[in-house]
Amino acid sequence: MRWTNIGIVTTKEVPAEAELISHQLLLRAAYIKKISQGIFVYGHLALKVIRNLESIIREEMEKANAVEIFMPMVQPADLWKTTGRWNKMGDTMLRFKNRTQQEFCLGPTHEEVVTEYIKPFIKSYKNLPLNFYQIQTKYRDEIRPRFGLMRGREFIMKDAYSFDINLEQAQKSYYDMYKTYQNIFNRLGVVYRVVQADTGDIGGSQSHEFHLLADSGEDMLLVSDASDFAANSEICKTLSTKERQKLFKENFNKEEVKKLKQKLVETPNIKSIADLSKFLSIKEDQLVKTLFFNIKTEKTVKKETQECIEPVVILVRGDYDVNPYKLKNLLKATEVELLSEKEVIALTGANPGSCGPVNLKGQAKIYADFSVEELVNYTVGANKTDYHMQNVNHSDFSCKEFFDLRWAVAGDLSPDGKGKLVEYRGIEAGHIFYLGTTYSEKLKAEFLDSNGKTCPVEMGCYGMGVSRLMQAIVEQSHDEDGMIWPMALAPYKVHICLLDPKDEQVSKICEEVYQALISEGVSVLLDDRKERPGFKFKDADLLGMPLRLTFGARSLKEGGVELVERKTHDKKLLPVNTVVKTILEKIKL
Amino acid sequence: MRWTNIGIVTTKEVPAEAELISHQLLLRAAYIKKISQGIFVYGHLALKVIRNLESIIREEMEKANAVEIFMPMVQPADLWKTTGRWNKMGDTMLRFKNRTQQEFCLGPTHEEVVTEYIKPFIKSYKNLPLNFYQIQTKYRDEIRPRFGLMRGREFIMKDAYSFDINLEQAQKSYYDMYKTYQNIFNRLGVVYRVVQADTGDIGGSQSHEFHLLADSGEDMLLVSDASDFAANSEICKTLSTKERQKLFKENFNKEEVKKLKQKLVETPNIKSIADLSKFLSIKEDQLVKTLFFNIKTEKTVKKETQECIEPVVILVRGDYDVNPYKLKNLLKATEVELLSEKEVIALTGANPGSCGPVNLKGQAKIYADFSVEELVNYTVGANKTDYHMQNVNHSDFSCKEFFDLRWAVAGDLSPDGKGKLVEYRGIEAGHIFYLGTTYSEKLKAEFLDSNGKTCPVEMGCYGMGVSRLMQAIVEQSHDEDGMIWPMALAPYKVHICLLDPKDEQVSKICEEVYQALISEGVSVLLDDRKERPGFKFKDADLLGMPLRLTFGARSLKEGGVELVERKTHDKKLLPVNTVVKTILEKIKL
Repeated sequence: MRWTNIGIVTTKEVPAEAELISHQLLLRAAYIKKISQGIFVYGHLALKVIRNLESIIREEMEKANAVEIFMPMVQPADLWKTTGRWNKMGDTMLRFKNRTQQEFCLGPTHEEVVTEYIKPFIKSYKNLPLNFYQIQTKYRDEIRPRFGLMRGREFIMKDAYSFDINLEQAQKSYYDMYKTYQNIFNRLGVVYRVVQADTGDIGGSQSHEFHLLADSGEDMLLVSDASDFAANSEICKTLSTKERQKLFKENFNKEEVKKLKQKLVETPNIKSIADLSKFLSIKEDQLVKTLFFNIKTEKTVKKETQECIEPVVILVRGDYDVNPYKLKNLLKATEVELLSEKEVIALTGANPGSCGPVNLKGQAKIYADFSVEELVNYTVGANKTDYHMQNVNHSDFSCKEFFDLRWAVAGDLSPDGKGKLVEYRGIEAGHIFYLGTTYSEKLKAEFLDSNGKTCPVEMGCYGMGVSRLMQAIVEQSHDEDGMIWPMALAPYKVHICLLDPKDEQVSKICEEVYQALISEGVSVLLDDRKERPGFKFKDADLLGMPLRLTFGARSLKEGGVELVERKTHDKKLLPVNTVVKTILEKIKL
Repeated sequence: MRWTNIGIVTTKEVPAEAELISHQLLLRAAYIKKISQGIFVYGHLALKVIRNLESIIREEMEKANAVEIFMPMVQPADLWKTTGRWNKMGDTMLRFKNRTQQEFCLGPTHEEVVTEYIKPFIKSYKNLPLNFYQIQTKYRDEIRPRFGLMRGREFIMKDAYSFDINLEQAQKSYYDMYKTYQNIFNRLGVVYRVVQADTGDIGGSQSHEFHLLADSGEDMLLVSDASDFAANSEICKTLSTKERQKLFKENFNKEEVKKLKQKLVETPNIKSIADLSKFLSIKEDQLVKTLFFNIKTEKTVKKETQECIEPVVILVRGDYDVNPYKLKNLLKATEVELLSEKEVIALTGANPGSCGPVNLKGQAKIYADFSVEELVNYTVGANKTDYHMQNVNHSDFSCKEFFDLRWAVAGDLSPDGKGKLVEYRGIEAGHIFYLGTTYSEKLKAEFLDSNGKTCPVEMGCYGMGVSRLMQAIVEQSHDEDGMIWPMALAPYKVHICLLDPKDEQVSKICEEVYQALISEGVSVLLDDRKERPGFKFKDADLLGMPLRLTFGARSLKEGGVELVERKTHDKKLLPVNTVVKTILEKIKL
């Protein structure tokens, strides 16, 4: 491909909104162009990377017997109403009416459509297992699109769906896809971690995320320093006292601390734990935070869904934070929301910074985190503005049970009993879910088992963000000059800089090598612009093809063509007649 | 690929709404599944055909130096407002607001986005020409989706856009694409015609459509029996008297007919031309129809667009019909609409069937079709219900000018002066437009020419319906048993029927040949289901792969494997060790 055909013009400037280096580089090199917030044109070079990604994904999916289909982007509301997700999905699902007032959405995911699709094909257990996937444009109406392709509105995704006769087979399908994802990420040559994850809007009971590690990643991952354990911090377990005793043989037979007498202390204008700690000269881990959440749940009464909202009180050690994902999962809530200052005052009579579990008015149920379990003689708010209560103990508000409710942090003991947790930041590029029969029951995707019994089909779903992967790879693989594409993904493997396009002899030799490489099946980008050498080299570094060849009058006189490797900047002067052979060898490495 | 992986189940039944045989076959063979009106899942086999189509399209586009990119499906309203198409596009463009109340549409076409995309790349005339294309999902909110993929709402299209420095270069780009389209259709092996066409909502001044010929086609094509002339009936010219004299040397120096005196005749309850002809015993070609249309036009006064609606009167010979496309183009209207009966009565005082141009009340301007030019002493409505006027002549209502306003029909003289027109029906699969600077002026897509002058870029656009093509090809290539795929497009080139999957020896031989073919790069569908032979053969015919191999205990005993060609039903018994070689030869033919 000749540069003058692609026509792109690179720039030095990037808009201020492009915070990530990968976003900046993709914009500067004209790989992508923003058309609206979170909506992009993929230029030719970006599309080539995406096609290369897709090829690797397809090959590995097909090895796992997954079959490619293509589902619509515009989906009718009925299907989503049947599964109950029409309401559940929230505002990130874009809904609209067509000209005849029928309701539709732009598909953010395809569980409903694929389940509808396979229904006629699974009359008997003999028709199973099946696994269908697609590579399709998806749409999520992100409230604040950012980071370029990382959190866009319109994006390209690979999504697969497995169908099995029972839990055992479904688990096999799940782990086949787990392995397939590992194969894909291994082939991409990226640095990644697989972590346990939350199931979110998709539902189901088990899920893993595949993260590319990068300091700019939006997700916090916690990984054991002594085992394979890894989890998204959203769901990373913390251990109870009992579990720590069992798994780590910690000795808790410490001498019992004598319970002291409660004491009310004035704490004027103290609102944060840090200030309280300083003011009272008590370490944060001897303080207990009291937080109030509204818990939204749904109950089905006589086939009608009723929504119920009630406040709860959460206690957590002063140096930790409450993890709302855990709270949501514990209480099977559809939503959890921190109470506003006003609401807290209405409930307790005191400012939020001065609230505590002792003598609390009202009926809000109290849930204490594991981190509170071993505390004695601790300090809490007194439910009186600017006062705290010292020497409080569990019996003072009858707290008998403790729950896993805080964010795990680096240094925590690993939940699998091996080692301590270390923090990484990750970019989520894949997410797999075991769904069970959540969708098949509602959509009546049923088969007859070997006993002639009608059963809902067991499902799993498996997403991979194709356009996001492209940018995540740049985030992992670049230097100060630009992108560095791995050979398997590069838009073009070879970037030719023709330095003297007006010199007939140089142009002729360059054209011959260009054609020879193409006829050997090598993808080549030929910079045939009438620009200065320095300008062309800078652009070559920015665009990031793995191998650069330079055809200039001077180097040809010196005996050849310069080959530069993008990653290492290694240079070599090749005699013209060895160029094709050398390139072919480099590519096969 | 094994059938049990694809999982599809074929059916004999088709919904009544599937009128076209191609639609029926695609549904019966589970190539597609309807999810909503005009919205389909493309099953694995359909997707394979589409991928094959795409490959051919890509190869030919790239030969013409067109560069592939990928534009978003969701497009911001601003761009469309800038070109004025946000209002102009009508209800087939699906518009919606996102969660922050910004307006968007689902892209029915991409002129606006691509023009915005190329703006930074065309600073100088040296950056041109450029040609970008994409293969993308498009959406049109058809009021009545029908004929399966022929007139769906969500569909797959290839659309290309050319950018040039001047008209001459733009015409070259246009004819390069014309040739590229011919190359594509030739490679597909379809029977097609290129015809002159209307430019519709896209605008521009020149366009051609590429039609697959089929009796079920929605479009009427008129083609000369003596030349290359071909046009969609929407725009097919008819000739004026002068043109016929000039082109066909017709002798019009007939003796002059004496004008007779007007005569009012009562024509009770006569409403149609056919009835009038019978009642008066006058041939339809001596009668003149009078029709009333509302013409909607837009005028820009002081930068504001004003809409203007006024009625016009159209005269056409009794045996012809008024072509609203021609009327729209002649009067540069945004819309033309036949007046209702009430409106006609309000305007003329008479029922629509009794109206005429003589003594017509009001100011409506009269336009007469060429077909009226040579008439003398003709009959028209008398503007009095149940009365007609005989022996009317042009001077009776001062009609001096005639226009091309009727539908051309088979038997008409060819507008290029060679031969007569013949009718064909066609399925539009491609449409190319010369756009000029319609879009570039409004979106300020400008470059500096060699004199340093700022000029809007010259554009062309080139569409091809990929998903529609798939169905159109079935419409052209099928028999009573099912589809017949040409080798280049077949989802799988070879369909293996394994008749005795429980017979180990047969299965082993079959598996060996299956694997050998795959390792030679041949795509093979292996029917490994536990079904009766007759059932499998019927399905093989329905699915339509070009070559069928049958592995059964009986035929193996008889010395080999049966090869059947789908198109001709030719059968041959091949020794097992020659199967791969024979298949490879057949495929290369």
